[in-house]
Amino acid sequence: MSARPRYAYLGPEGTFTEAALRQVASPDEAEYLPQSDVASAIAAVRDGQADFAVVAIESTVEGGVTATLDSLATGSPLVLLREVLVPVQFTLAAAPGVRLEDVRRISAHPHAWVQCRRWLAHHLPQVVHVPATSNTAPAALIADALRTGGPADLGFDAALVPPPAVQTYGLDVLAADVADNVAALTRFVVVGHPGDVPPPSGADKTTLVVHLPDNEAGALLAMLEQFAVRGVNLSRIESRPIGDALGRYSFSIDAEGHITDERVGEAIMGLRRRCPYVRFLGSYPRADAVEPTVHVGTADSDFVGARTWLRAVREGRAT
Amino acid sequence: MSARPRYAYLGPEGTFTEAALRQVASPDEAEYLPQSDVASAIAAVRDGQADFAVVAIESTVEGGVTATLDSLATGSPLVLLREVLVPVQFTLAAAPGVRLEDVRRISAHPHAWVQCRRWLAHHLPQVVHVPATSNTAPAALIADALRTGGPADLGFDAALVPPPAVQTYGLDVLAADVADNVAALTRFVVVGHPGDVPPPSGADKTTLVVHLPDNEAGALLAMLEQFAVRGVNLSRIESRPIGDALGRYSFSIDAEGHITDERVGEAIMGLRRRCPYVRFLGSYPRADAVEPTVHVGTADSDFVGARTWLRAVREGRAT
Amino acid sequence: MSARPRYAYLGPEGTFTEAALRQVASPDEAEYLPQSDVASAIAAVRDGQADFAVVAIESTVEGGVTATLDSLATGSPLVLLREVLVPVQFTLAAAPGVRLEDVRRISAHPHAWVQCRRWLAHHLPQVVHVPATSNTAPAALIADALRTGGPADLGFDAALVPPPAVQTYGLDVLAADVADNVAALTRFVVVGHPGDVPPPSGADKTTLVVHLPDNEAGALLAMLEQFAVRGVNLSRIESRPIGDALGRYSFSIDAEGHITDERVGEAIMGLRRRCPYVRFLGSYPRADAVEPTVHVGTADSDFVGARTWLRAVREGRAT
Amino acid sequence: MSARPRYAYLGPEGTFTEAALRQVASPDEAEYLPQSDVASAIAAVRDGQADFAVVAIESTVEGGVTATLDSLATGSPLVLLREVLVPVQFTLAAAPGVRLEDVRRISAHPHAWVQCRRWLAHHLPQVVHVPATSNTAPAALIADALRTGGPADLGFDAALVPPPAVQTYGLDVLAADVADNVAALTRFVVVGHPGDVPPPSGADKTTLVVHLPDNEAGALLAMLEQFAVRGVNLSRIESRPIGDALGRYSFSIDAEGHITDERVGEAIMGLRRRCPYVRFLGSYPRADAVEPTVHVGTADSDFVGARTWLRAVREGRAT
Repeated sequence: MSARPRYAYLGPEGTFTEAALRQVASPDEAEYLPQSDVASAIAAVRDGQADFAVVAIESTVEGGVTATLDSLATGSPLVLLREVLVPVQFTLAAAPGVRLEDVRRISAHPHAWVQCRRWLAHHLPQVVHVPATSNTAPAALIADALRTGGPADLGFDAALVPPPAVQTYGLDVLAADVADNVAALTRFVVVGHPGDVPPPSGADKTTLVVHLPDNEAGALLAMLEQFAVRGVNLSRIESRPIGDALGRYSFSIDAEGHITDERVGEAIMGLRRRCPYVRFLGSYPRADAVEPTVHVGTADSDFVGARTWLRAVREGRAT
Repeated sequence: MSARPRYAYLGPEGTFTEAALRQVASPDEAEYLPQSDVASAIAAVRDGQADFAVVAIESTVEGGVTATLDSLATGSPLVLLREVLVPVQFTLAAAPGVRLEDVRRISAHPHAWVQCRRWLAHHLPQVVHVPATSNTAPAALIADALRTGGPADLGFDAALVPPPAVQTYGLDVLAADVADNVAALTRFVVVGHPGDVPPPSGADKTTLVVHLPDNEAGALLAMLEQFAVRGVNLSRIESRPIGDALGRYSFSIDAEGHITDERVGEAIMGLRRRCPYVRFLGSYPRADAVEPTVHVGTADSDFVGARTWLRAVREGRAT
Repeated sequence: MSARPRYAYLGPEGTFTEAALRQVASPDEAEYLPQSDVASAIAAVRDGQADFAVVAIESTVEGGVTATLDSLATGSPLVLLREVLVPVQFTLAAAPGVRLEDVRRISAHPHAWVQCRRWLAHHLPQVVHVPATSNTAPAALIADALRTGGPADLGFDAALVPPPAVQTYGLDVLAADVADNVAALTRFVVVGHPGDVPPPSGADKTTLVVHLPDNEAGALLAMLEQFAVRGVNLSRIESRPIGDALGRYSFSIDAEGHITDERVGEAIMGLRRRCPYVRFLGSYPRADAVEPTVHVGTADSDFVGARTWLRAVREGRAT
Repeated sequence: MSARPRYAYLGPEGTFTEAALRQVASPDEAEYLPQSDVASAIAAVRDGQADFAVVAIESTVEGGVTATLDSLATGSPLVLLREVLVPVQFTLAAAPGVRLEDVRRISAHPHAWVQCRRWLAHHLPQVVHVPATSNTAPAALIADALRTGGPADLGFDAALVPPPAVQTYGLDVLAADVADNVAALTRFVVVGHPGDVPPPSGADKTTLVVHLPDNEAGALLAMLEQFAVRGVNLSRIESRPIGDALGRYSFSIDAEGHITDERVGEAIMGLRRRCPYVRFLGSYPRADAVEPTVHVGTADSDFVGARTWLRAVREGRAT
């Protein structure tokens, strides 16, 4: 029986998600619970099998991770507690002995495939994509085949894998750093049950899910004005279909600041009043530690001062 | 010594302001303190000679009464407690015996002159304007001359006066209802010391003075958005020069609703935070008893519900 | 018969308006046609008695000159061709021999009275205001009385007059520089018939009259957005009642830039499309020669480039 | 050699995309060129192997099809010529003889899997997902195995396939209509080379790609105002990462109306002036034939009238 916190994540060993998890808690401090997909990792928290999940939420190349956004937007409430950035890089690897010029079929998670498209088009234009369920699944298949001595056809000759998976699974490198975008990053979040919100660090973001009141362009503008009029900047806004009809969207938003900030609180109350659905997905420190811009008149002290004045005005003690 | 409330107003007897005052308190209930001008009436409240002042603030023809707007915008704090609408009509009157065809010079307050311009241009195109300090001053001069038997030249032959002044001063009517705009109204306000704000009647307005943060068009837009984002409509907005440089304005605003309304309170706090100067000039029932439009999500219950929810979110009890 | 341009202005000699007119055209170059009031000066242009009128439109102390704003907003079309700034200063003057301590009644145009209110309250608190139709009318009355030898009671003992009137009318100075605001300025405009718009100087303003589509706060916001979205700043915005009902306003606006500027043209077309009434009152050089701020993407070349691109897109030659 | 238009699409036979293509051109009228993925279908048009591509762009369940959005946003210019809606429904099918209770592994395209998740969780909670590259790939594998008599293990027992694929590939139905959302629709577009824009049908939409000028919340608001101020509604707005850094987005937008509409043209010129990147992706009839709402003052005739007036004003012929 373990008293260590249990983390569900997209496994198995060697994934980018594991690299993110290692930034959060070492294998000594925590129990690692690998899952087959993002939805399962999040479900593991909901049903009590895990205390936390570490899941990708956004990448520079692919944008929002829809499985994560959609799993968090509905279902029993969960919150984001922390974010972690992991550089994205891929290695083209294979069982020992395979040569680059023999590669015809490459197993890769579709996201990995996309991120190496230009490299592949240039170096292996004839190669065929064999989709994998995760970045490490093909590495594990190769390792299995090597261990069982089987020369069996795996259906592919090589795989795009995260660099750590090369050693974990005993592969050979055919080409390193094959991702097209050398600055690529993936943002991971630690998901947990609602409870005490982490206190403000001074450089926080707040994540929300918001449905617009109706199917008008003006509704998005009105939502953005709820933030703008309180001087709250947004660092991310993504639309996802609500799913019941074309043209109805749910917005996933990262706002600069913490839920306990006066300006953030008032903006979110504005959304709560005007929008049919608002879900708070957490306030947590930014991985980049960038402090929010505080516009004139929107510091906490400005709000407190205005509230004190309004109370005096209402009581006839000020004008 | 009098226990009756004392009302300063633009006198003497027979003015429109007196007609407004009569709607507020009868001469039996109140002490009437006629003043020579609006600024004096307001000053009488400030220096304790009167409890209240009744002054014109806006007319359909002339717009804002600048003396009132400017006197209230600065100086020791006063608030509006009530508004009263008075139809504006003028009578061309003279000493008994004067005939319309003999009229060459007409005494009239400049506002009265403007409001009868078309009638005068049509019926008495050659007549000369002799400016008066109030609407009833020329009537009083005629009455004086009649009483003292003096045939002395008053400098004018007839006067534009409010209808009640005809009888008060013993004049003859040369032409009734000579104002160009038969629907003309003047809005008067009762001014008093800050103190208990009248409770909401359900159909209130709130008057404010606001200076913009700087000399940009964008600043006015930002101010209007403070109201719009909380669903508060404005029924009047007028600019007045601040007086220190061309291009710097003070805005006099009537917002629909009462200072104790959540949406009005939050909007005004927004102004307080962003603008260099905000003065509350009172919340009071609208004379026309028109209830404000309450937009979706801006009722008091919406604000209270959102605040309760935000507290729960901040304490980790909701998402 | 005169070939010199004829200028109507608020006379007689010695007024601030004359000082403004002198900046525009010397008495040698132009025929000066003094008028009794602003409305008459403007009417003189409309009915052909004058080629131009020089009238005050705004002062730092009193704000918009309502007679000017209202006369230009309706009636046959006139335009502003030029603006002139005149410092506002007043002298308390009287017939030779009058002493300051004897002054009980002061004749002054109401605007002059207001601008010297603090000085008067401090130095002559008991003095009574005798309203005059212009700043120089009382000076002329004194001069007349002196010339005709009449000791007749003028109804006042001294007058607030523009400094040049002292010499013109042979008065004595009782106190110089009695205006409360030493930085006070009045802005005058030269009004003429529409025709060739003066070419852009690079530092122009454009004056407009606009009625809002309806009686909503949102309508003013929408009007301001027509300017903001094209990057046009406003240097003045004033409301005037339309006159048919309380709460209906006409806006008098100065926008930075010239009607031939692309951004100004598009903004004004936006007003023309959305508002029930838009009147162009001219584009003319700013007296202060301040060049407008040109925001990113709003230079003429940006508009021309966008239009060229749109044409190509519509013709299938670009995307 | 063929004179029929050539259509690239996501094949093989039996896909939803083929169903969409059949709405556009029958196999008799057109040459069908099945491709292995969306990017290849679009590339086929770019490199001249096809005249048009039919690709999914949005579904009610999954939202924007990122491969389509990203392929169109960059690269050599292509435009959308038409849109087609296809109801989305899935059948769980297998080789003849397989029984529902024997199914352990189901091959399905990840999108199909997501859209049947609830049905699967309820009826086959233990089943494992075997990802397929397309909706029909597993059906083709079964058909191949049946034809070659091979009892070989395909790695899965059943497949989620589009209903038409059942007959095409000779499968047995284990369960029909297993998609969770019975109202699900996918929107397909016909992609072609820029050239003559289809003339307005009266119920059109215009698709754009826009990058914001910088990384501020205010920039999105400013972009939306470019549409709002011209009365153009948006029916879709989706963000996609630009890919060079977290927090930089490209927006994919559907605006109501046609590029030849005055209001659409002016709005798009506004974007062109203010945004670093704007790409026109076509104006084409809406599949639902819903006509756009035309707000007051935004009809073509309003724009033409305003332009005529502005020209007259600039030439001094109007005010």
